[in-house]
Amino acid sequence: MTKKLEDLFKEELNVINIGLESFAENLKNEGFNAIQVDYKPPAGGDKEMIKLLDKIDRISDKIEKANKEAVKRIQKSEPVLVDVQTAKDALPNFEGKMILHAAPPEKWEDMSGPMQGAAIGACIYEGWAEDEESARKMLDVGEVTFDPAHHHNAVGPMTGIVSPSMPVWVVENKTYGNKAFTTLNEGLGKVLRFGANGPEVIERLKWMEKVLGPALGAALRKTDGGINLKNITSQALHMGDEVHNRNKAATSLFIREITPYLLETDYSNKDIKEIIKFMGGNEHFYLNLSMPASKATMDAASGVEYSTVLTAMARNGVHFGIRISGLGDKWFVGDAQKVDGLYFPGYTEEDACLDLGDSTISETAAVGGFAMAAAPAIVGFVGGTVADSIRFTKDMYEITIAENENFTIPPLNFRGTPTGIDLTKIIETQILPAINTGIAHKEPGIGQIGAGLVDPPEECFKKAIRAFAQKYTK
Amino acid sequence: MTKKLEDLFKEELNVINIGLESFAENLKNEGFNAIQVDYKPPAGGDKEMIKLLDKIDRISDKIEKANKEAVKRIQKSEPVLVDVQTAKDALPNFEGKMILHAAPPEKWEDMSGPMQGAAIGACIYEGWAEDEESARKMLDVGEVTFDPAHHHNAVGPMTGIVSPSMPVWVVENKTYGNKAFTTLNEGLGKVLRFGANGPEVIERLKWMEKVLGPALGAALRKTDGGINLKNITSQALHMGDEVHNRNKAATSLFIREITPYLLETDYSNKDIKEIIKFMGGNEHFYLNLSMPASKATMDAASGVEYSTVLTAMARNGVHFGIRISGLGDKWFVGDAQKVDGLYFPGYTEEDACLDLGDSTISETAAVGGFAMAAAPAIVGFVGGTVADSIRFTKDMYEITIAENENFTIPPLNFRGTPTGIDLTKIIETQILPAINTGIAHKEPGIGQIGAGLVDPPEECFKKAIRAFAQKYTK
Repeated sequence: MTKKLEDLFKEELNVINIGLESFAENLKNEGFNAIQVDYKPPAGGDKEMIKLLDKIDRISDKIEKANKEAVKRIQKSEPVLVDVQTAKDALPNFEGKMILHAAPPEKWEDMSGPMQGAAIGACIYEGWAEDEESARKMLDVGEVTFDPAHHHNAVGPMTGIVSPSMPVWVVENKTYGNKAFTTLNEGLGKVLRFGANGPEVIERLKWMEKVLGPALGAALRKTDGGINLKNITSQALHMGDEVHNRNKAATSLFIREITPYLLETDYSNKDIKEIIKFMGGNEHFYLNLSMPASKATMDAASGVEYSTVLTAMARNGVHFGIRISGLGDKWFVGDAQKVDGLYFPGYTEEDACLDLGDSTISETAAVGGFAMAAAPAIVGFVGGTVADSIRFTKDMYEITIAENENFTIPPLNFRGTPTGIDLTKIIETQILPAINTGIAHKEPGIGQIGAGLVDPPEECFKKAIRAFAQKYTK
Repeated sequence: MTKKLEDLFKEELNVINIGLESFAENLKNEGFNAIQVDYKPPAGGDKEMIKLLDKIDRISDKIEKANKEAVKRIQKSEPVLVDVQTAKDALPNFEGKMILHAAPPEKWEDMSGPMQGAAIGACIYEGWAEDEESARKMLDVGEVTFDPAHHHNAVGPMTGIVSPSMPVWVVENKTYGNKAFTTLNEGLGKVLRFGANGPEVIERLKWMEKVLGPALGAALRKTDGGINLKNITSQALHMGDEVHNRNKAATSLFIREITPYLLETDYSNKDIKEIIKFMGGNEHFYLNLSMPASKATMDAASGVEYSTVLTAMARNGVHFGIRISGLGDKWFVGDAQKVDGLYFPGYTEEDACLDLGDSTISETAAVGGFAMAAAPAIVGFVGGTVADSIRFTKDMYEITIAENENFTIPPLNFRGTPTGIDLTKIIETQILPAINTGIAHKEPGIGQIGAGLVDPPEECFKKAIRAFAQKYTK
């Protein structure tokens, strides 16, 4: 048997191509062995970061083991919705005139407009103040204590305001025993979480406190051990949701599951009808279930010594904070960024508050922006193209440790979502976590004005890696 | 400015490549103008068919105009669910001991096993016979009249059996005034439509007649003019359904929409709870709504003189029949084919009935197999790969006239589903309509054993084009 020269070439020649990808593609099309190398200097050539990465690399075996453990805890977590209770009864250390807010600690006077608006609304809702003016006065003199929701095992979308009388979902991580809490979703537009605080906002919150919350709690206590949220999220990812800014399928599945139990409660048909219409009239109702499910999952992965896995990302309209498993509850903070988004009619970028809310716990827990490839229809809400939605998810494999065992993406041939964000990989690749988000008006009292895509600030990751190196590589 | 020889080539050289596609691809990668021509002889070189196509081509202006009208009627149809009634009250010309079945007419003795099984079940359900033996006797002597459901403005999945006492959905095409009917979906497994007829099947049908149907009818009469099915289907296509063999999102959306109205009826909470659990326990519940919506749409497009648009495809386990708009209600029939599918545990291809059911009305109306690209997760049920699901839809653009204005596909950048199947294009390209389907056991009394993909027989299209040429090109 004789061989043609070309065939010999194809067998023997191995080309490593650095630079223009089409060159390697052409060779591959012709049957040659060609490998494309996208060369970028690590950490974008930042010498301090390269040094820190080198230092950290010396304990890479310990880190790898720790990250494996953290990721195992993420994968094995089983968040189950078990109850609705009043925030003051459910949340640990939630006493007196206290208001919780999204993301890292922020003083009243430094808070973003919508967060101040929502805090004012909470004071009126609680009956601590009669109107905006008196509320503002009591907040100015420090009569109300503020604390991040995260410090009470809770998370809140946008302003994330939780006050004592609000009903909260109680989500239990059945594998690890920890609990997480979030208020119930009020709907879109003029709502407290976006900073609105008018009479219709307060009235709705009162109905949620008196009817919606207690009825859903009663229904949940009729179930056999609760409703498995991991299961609903997993199904919803096959139905075009990514359960951060698209929750249409998950909301539908949740209503379908809870309704028979609602009918077992003593609530009147009129109340039940109103509840179902309220939940059904809000495609984002499941967001406030996706969030505590993610929080219950990520809290279980927190505090693993040597782990570089992110356990929280959260924004308050002024700052963006992250937490790292091996660094416990400490926040590493940078400036909140502008959101690149689609605006509701009548609003523009000029009106927008900076990036806001605890809802980035979704991305931290391998859904949301990390699962955007599962939700191509989301681009009509947050902007971008279908190709972008695929690219966002694909990029996230570069900065994560594993592929999710439970959350799979049909358009990517059922590949698991990128799971376990690795701080060192972010620093090394300079790829930032992909986040999609709602946009609040920058002034208090108005509400949501759009939705879009946003980057975290690089700064918080740099601070975290410095702290990590300091703690572990002395 | 001087130009390099290569650049000159790129500007001036136009390559038309017939054959191996990679050659054109390589040239295109290098910046040359290269057009790939996939040359296949029309109609696969079949001389009779080429002759007929030529003849028909002489009246192409009339056909084009007619097809435009037929497609307009498909696009403008507005199928709305308005009621549930008893089949004998709702369907035209449905009198006496009559049983309707799927697809073109078939005599009792020639029917497929499951269709015979379901007919026997219907006789027992109606109280015409006490048991299988006596039912079989009365069917053998012709005491019961059979007729296709299609002949009574109705469609039925799988065996498609409709008997007088069964409740049927009443769907009204608000644009064109015509109505369509389908029984309510019983669930999967051992159910009448797959040929099962045991006591639990009859008992379920009785509950559907006494409780489910009347309650849903009462709920629908509480709505403001009904529930718009086009709207639900359109949303479901953005939620991973194609509304033939994946109806999970549409079922959830439907439950979400009907429940508040159910709560307005006089039915007890116990009944309502049972109804919601029944609908919620069956991911295919919406199939029997998708089907009459498609039927109401396609009937409006029927009878357009000179139109080559398919208005029905239907199978009865023995034969596969199609109808052409310009040829009215006439069936063109070929042999039903084997389904290539995934089987439930314990069953194999050996056990399978041939292709069965009216549910291909979905594909005819631009959803189902034609919208598979919208439903990548369906491959876990019907087999194939995610890439296949994309390819099926893309291929269908080759044999259709338009892109749907209401049904869009997120993974294809919101391109409209392929709409208006053109008989001449099928003959010309030899591309057959893409169909996904359930699989029934070939013996009566058993039920569903799997789901898969199937081709129609070429034969029926050839018969139709012959008839078309004969009618219009004398």
